[in-house]
Amino acid sequence: MRILGIDPGLAIVGWGVVEVQGGRFFPVACGSVTTPAKTDVDYRLSVIYRDINEIIEKYKPDELAIEELFFNTNQTTAIAVAEARGVILLSAHQHGLPIGEYTPLQVKQAVVGYGKAEKRQVIAMVTSLLKLPAPPKPDDTADALAIALCHGQSSFSRRYGIKN
Amino acid sequence: MRILGIDPGLAIVGWGVVEVQGGRFFPVACGSVTTPAKTDVDYRLSVIYRDINEIIEKYKPDELAIEELFFNTNQTTAIAVAEARGVILLSAHQHGLPIGEYTPLQVKQAVVGYGKAEKRQVIAMVTSLLKLPAPPKPDDTADALAIALCHGQSSFSRRYGIKN
Repeated sequence: MRILGIDPGLAIVGWGVVEVQGGRFFPVACGSVTTPAKTDVDYRLSVIYRDINEIIEKYKPDELAIEELFFNTNQTTAIAVAEARGVILLSAHQHGLPIGEYTPLQVKQAVVGYGKAEKRQVIAMVTSLLKLPAPPKPDDTADALAIALCHGQSSFSRRYGIKN
Repeated sequence: MRILGIDPGLAIVGWGVVEVQGGRFFPVACGSVTTPAKTDVDYRLSVIYRDINEIIEKYKPDELAIEELFFNTNQTTAIAVAEARGVILLSAHQHGLPIGEYTPLQVKQAVVGYGKAEKRQVIAMVTSLLKLPAPPKPDDTADALAIALCHGQSSFSRRYGIKN
């Protein structure tokens, strides 16, 4: 099974494609979609929609995993991230991809084994699990790969009846 | 000039098309897009995107006016509304429509002349200004027409150098 992990945002959308075979993970591709600051939100959303469509059509994932959105202190940012999430979920739906949503706590628990792990621990585990030559950059890309790994572990557990 | 006003939401999107000629307003069409509760968010977003596309292609507005999103006490709803707003802004951009955004206060100020007007006053003024046979239903549709009127007044003021 091939999973596209997404760390949503308006300025940067991290993405990573991971292949899962027999409980093992293999990296396929990863990167980030960036949109120019000081341009209109509708333009930035159209860039994200176009690029996510292209990534799905190029790498043909079977499922999409995305970070669930919670409100933090920066509410203006949260609105923009939710708007970006809207066009990403639309693209996933239009390509018939089942969608998994995970909280940051679930992702850290799955990848590091500890829900309050620090960002550098998550990045180190992603780099190690996928046998990458160097930590993925920017952090949004590493987060997207972590979300894909979380979904892969979750799917594997579901299919094999392993309780987390 | 023809304006499509939008009151965004995930369960109900109110919409209303208004023609502005020489500072006067004429109703063209209005209604609401509803999405089934208890269905997946990505499906509901795809229904909204499809229907907004159809409305734009049918009524060919020149500009789109939409309510700006602020955070209220119900933060879970705010995320869903922002996701819906994302796909509506995407549709507007893809059809080349300039977008105007207005706060509820600005809409009430423009339509009733008082920023703290009650909902029933807004509905009464929309019904009166557009010479509608009855108040538009549901309230989301009336709100969308009010947003279109607000944008029409704002555009008219801009073009004729009238200060609000």
